[in-house]
Amino acid sequence: MANQTQILEPKIFQYTFATNEPVLHVNSGDSIVARTRDARGYDENGNPLPEEMKPQQPGVTFLPSNPLLGPIFVEEAQRGDALAVHIEKITLNRPNAWSSRNANFGSLTGEGPGRRYLLNPPIEAGMHDWTLDLERNVGLYEMPNSRLPRVEIPLHPFLGSIGVAPPHGRAETALTPGEYGGNMDCVETREGTTLYLPVWADGAYLAYGDIHAAQGDGELCGSALETTAEVTLRLEVIKNWPLAWPRLEDAEFIMTAGSTRPLFEALAAAQVELLNWLVQDYGFERWDAWQLNSQVGTMRIGNIVDPYYTVVAKFPKEFLPSSL
Amino acid sequence: MANQTQILEPKIFQYTFATNEPVLHVNSGDSIVARTRDARGYDENGNPLPEEMKPQQPGVTFLPSNPLLGPIFVEEAQRGDALAVHIEKITLNRPNAWSSRNANFGSLTGEGPGRRYLLNPPIEAGMHDWTLDLERNVGLYEMPNSRLPRVEIPLHPFLGSIGVAPPHGRAETALTPGEYGGNMDCVETREGTTLYLPVWADGAYLAYGDIHAAQGDGELCGSALETTAEVTLRLEVIKNWPLAWPRLEDAEFIMTAGSTRPLFEALAAAQVELLNWLVQDYGFERWDAWQLNSQVGTMRIGNIVDPYYTVVAKFPKEFLPSSL
Amino acid sequence: MANQTQILEPKIFQYTFATNEPVLHVNSGDSIVARTRDARGYDENGNPLPEEMKPQQPGVTFLPSNPLLGPIFVEEAQRGDALAVHIEKITLNRPNAWSSRNANFGSLTGEGPGRRYLLNPPIEAGMHDWTLDLERNVGLYEMPNSRLPRVEIPLHPFLGSIGVAPPHGRAETALTPGEYGGNMDCVETREGTTLYLPVWADGAYLAYGDIHAAQGDGELCGSALETTAEVTLRLEVIKNWPLAWPRLEDAEFIMTAGSTRPLFEALAAAQVELLNWLVQDYGFERWDAWQLNSQVGTMRIGNIVDPYYTVVAKFPKEFLPSSL
Amino acid sequence: MANQTQILEPKIFQYTFATNEPVLHVNSGDSIVARTRDARGYDENGNPLPEEMKPQQPGVTFLPSNPLLGPIFVEEAQRGDALAVHIEKITLNRPNAWSSRNANFGSLTGEGPGRRYLLNPPIEAGMHDWTLDLERNVGLYEMPNSRLPRVEIPLHPFLGSIGVAPPHGRAETALTPGEYGGNMDCVETREGTTLYLPVWADGAYLAYGDIHAAQGDGELCGSALETTAEVTLRLEVIKNWPLAWPRLEDAEFIMTAGSTRPLFEALAAAQVELLNWLVQDYGFERWDAWQLNSQVGTMRIGNIVDPYYTVVAKFPKEFLPSSL
Repeated sequence: MANQTQILEPKIFQYTFATNEPVLHVNSGDSIVARTRDARGYDENGNPLPEEMKPQQPGVTFLPSNPLLGPIFVEEAQRGDALAVHIEKITLNRPNAWSSRNANFGSLTGEGPGRRYLLNPPIEAGMHDWTLDLERNVGLYEMPNSRLPRVEIPLHPFLGSIGVAPPHGRAETALTPGEYGGNMDCVETREGTTLYLPVWADGAYLAYGDIHAAQGDGELCGSALETTAEVTLRLEVIKNWPLAWPRLEDAEFIMTAGSTRPLFEALAAAQVELLNWLVQDYGFERWDAWQLNSQVGTMRIGNIVDPYYTVVAKFPKEFLPSSL
Repeated sequence: MANQTQILEPKIFQYTFATNEPVLHVNSGDSIVARTRDARGYDENGNPLPEEMKPQQPGVTFLPSNPLLGPIFVEEAQRGDALAVHIEKITLNRPNAWSSRNANFGSLTGEGPGRRYLLNPPIEAGMHDWTLDLERNVGLYEMPNSRLPRVEIPLHPFLGSIGVAPPHGRAETALTPGEYGGNMDCVETREGTTLYLPVWADGAYLAYGDIHAAQGDGELCGSALETTAEVTLRLEVIKNWPLAWPRLEDAEFIMTAGSTRPLFEALAAAQVELLNWLVQDYGFERWDAWQLNSQVGTMRIGNIVDPYYTVVAKFPKEFLPSSL
Repeated sequence: MANQTQILEPKIFQYTFATNEPVLHVNSGDSIVARTRDARGYDENGNPLPEEMKPQQPGVTFLPSNPLLGPIFVEEAQRGDALAVHIEKITLNRPNAWSSRNANFGSLTGEGPGRRYLLNPPIEAGMHDWTLDLERNVGLYEMPNSRLPRVEIPLHPFLGSIGVAPPHGRAETALTPGEYGGNMDCVETREGTTLYLPVWADGAYLAYGDIHAAQGDGELCGSALETTAEVTLRLEVIKNWPLAWPRLEDAEFIMTAGSTRPLFEALAAAQVELLNWLVQDYGFERWDAWQLNSQVGTMRIGNIVDPYYTVVAKFPKEFLPSSL
Repeated sequence: MANQTQILEPKIFQYTFATNEPVLHVNSGDSIVARTRDARGYDENGNPLPEEMKPQQPGVTFLPSNPLLGPIFVEEAQRGDALAVHIEKITLNRPNAWSSRNANFGSLTGEGPGRRYLLNPPIEAGMHDWTLDLERNVGLYEMPNSRLPRVEIPLHPFLGSIGVAPPHGRAETALTPGEYGGNMDCVETREGTTLYLPVWADGAYLAYGDIHAAQGDGELCGSALETTAEVTLRLEVIKNWPLAWPRLEDAEFIMTAGSTRPLFEALAAAQVELLNWLVQDYGFERWDAWQLNSQVGTMRIGNIVDPYYTVVAKFPKEFLPSSL
């Protein structure tokens, strides 16, 4: 059977939990085209998330954030494989985006359950509206109370959240990134990148969404330019390639994404995964890999606001044996 | 209907997840008597966990640790209530216990997914067997390679794991403590203590087990004296008492248990919860409560080995208004 | 020469820095009797710190906190030795104490240079006055805005700060505890305890003060019951006993004090030091020591407000070979 | 008096401590040309540090690392000013560099006093030699045990350590970065960058050295390409510009460097300093600055191996009002 392009109906589930009923079954090699909703459930026309798209499990409370497309069952994917997600196209499809700051979200403030506790009064919450000029690929922000009253920034759209069913049945992937990917808020999951996700449950149960039109490192205020897009992904199962953490690849870098708390351990997770990759697949002696990466490797602090933080470790492909 | 004592059949589920089918329905005021299995699933006669007691959800992997009794549906319990668990009796029922150390569990070593990453070689794993003399209430440990070849320690049995269904559908409570209780490994959840658990899902979905015959602060090596017991609990629903974290009470102290990472935030969670309790229920002005607790409050580091750590903050009841 | 009791003149230096001129030279075996000043420099009669007692080094700013008695040069003390400080007597000598809360000190608030940064508004600073009834050994605190308007707590005076010259010339010991002791704010440095300090510089350069009449775990609000006392110490040099961290001993426990950030590493420092002590001096096989301490060891969270935090690890002497 | 170029004699002190005797007095506007020694004290000809250049303070132990040029007394610099250091020229002057890995240095291993404690066996220490081809501006590394046996990387020389006398007399700046700059190991302190250091002590007491020919983010293995250079700096005192942390500026970015532990707080220190800069000097309303920086700001993880870690927060100058 030839590979196919599936048009995913916009039935949206909030979680990538493996026991959810898949909305789509696909094969390795297939492509999927679908339109996402924003982090609060609004679509490209400004319609809110319909009640029937909200998960209905008695006795369970769901976070109101990050409704995702999926889960998608990939037939060939089995635990121990990797799911290569080729991000082929992200086309923004709405002339606006919002950002916000919250009294209990964002790590330089106090934070809700299980995170950062303070005696201080909360910060003042607020919304920030951006206009997206899709022709010129810029975002516009008005700041009447600042000396510079208006700013224009280039857009670089990416998937804020993309992941598979986690091991151990963990189910709060709406906000929490981890070894299954999820809400990593990585600027690297953009057009042209291939994301390799470890498959923890047979079928993988891929889900994604939460488009960011632009974002700085750390997603400091707790939100990026939150909007919607039409997204084209091509999926490919790589058999018997067990990964501990998501890996990524673009024209310049091989990369790994570690997500945990505290921040240092997210960094350590990413670096150990990168070291293992260099040794196992590229034939570096262990301490040579560590030495070389110490001199040429870079890192990016992903988000520092989610329940777990994300650090991306990057190694330039020009120093890999295959690039000689 | 008068309150009843339920004898829980040993059908054991690993998780306190609200979507699991309850094994028992009880009413506020009822008591439950049941025999637990140890952290690896063995019963008081040394029989392993039968296959049919293991959770069977296709595509989901379950941790092999801490099979619990439950979940138990408490009819009156609704989100926003508290479930008071009076721990009436813990009777050890096995002449032995085991402890262990693991290469990737226990926070002074490297650790598995999402926790602590190292370049160092792993430590040597090992098992440690203890004899329990239930007559004399002591544990005996042989150390032929130490100057002191044998040691006897007093036993103080407690529930290592007791919790309810978590908010947001989180399901890995086998190992991870949180705002739902769970694997807190608190020496305080012993005979005579009342544990107040926040109810996050209607019915509460109580589960418990993982008896420790004795344990030091921090459960440093990753295991306590792991064994089994017959446990009697009396349950009571307290309507409209929303708690952010588990609270405890015994003859001497009111206490709160915060569980998260890093360790400092577990401490902060417990202290903020205790401060709120002192202000809301005991009429302390906020900064007076903080001042007094700064001078008379104590803390105990619960476990430092689980995916989240636990700190218990304790305030002596002799300084509460009700004790005057 | 027989051992002597030295009466230390109240010339007070703020730091235990080895290049400061010693105020006293003593021999191993000598005792010292001296009266301390409180954390803001006031003596037992309420007189502030005279200008001539403040350190005068051009171009260097000194913290206004914790003027100490010392430094004291101990003739026999050389790097690699331990200085045993027998805390023989602490006699409170003032009918009052103060405590406080500060906008930028205390770890559940934002904090000044190098510590904890927030976007939140600061907390409201304030002073709290306590009356000390030295006859009845209690502290009295008035809380007119609380339901319980007045509270009496038992006193347990101890040295908040006691240490020696640090390695590497570090000089901010007024506030920062470390491997030289310093501002550990440990309730354990009280009458009857022997404190073993590693000697990092020849002569040791002991300094001490900062009497706390009482304090809870963590010194949460940033201050204990701050007051003054007459203190009698007996000093003893133990040759060739290199310690990585301060150790303590009282009738019940051997103890170690780790001080660093984050909190977990203070814990780890104390536990590794305790493990080494059990193995080297008490003949435990390494993993037996770890196992036994995991089951009977306790910990205490010292302060969580200083630039470094302190954790005390405690092992009961009843389980040591010498106690058989 | 016209500004002058001073040729600093290679008398080298290890610390930037304000009580050290300055080796040079300069005026605001002066330039300094000097040759550095490498992190172990070797000069450009391979000669080790002479005994007379080592600090000699009785009773004080000095770390064997990072001998620096200085301290330099800047006449106009007073506490509350900023010292602008224009890094005009860094000319490598040695055909080799070394790097290393150590058993107790580098944060993915266990670490020495006050840092990271483990039960694991140490990693294997080792030295790594690099050849510097100064003509072609590349470093060459031989890896006979790796599939790729030899690698060439571009050089980007920078000052690993540059700072002033710290507040509070702290003196271990050989290894520890802080609010005085110091051993930040920032790739940004390179030719073309202006570094703004807060002046804490009158005269500033500038010191610098520790040339790195190249380095990845984090200095993961604990060393960069350690070598020597001839360095030209131009100094300028900016009166009454009190900074909490070092700031930097190059053609593209304004930047701030936060250094503390844990890693998250280094990030928070840098971000709060950057926010304050944007508000105070560039007229952004506070939440506008936070919003804009959340969308366009980037960060770089400096070192994660020193006693304190460094994070650099960067804001693109194209979005500042002055660039309009």
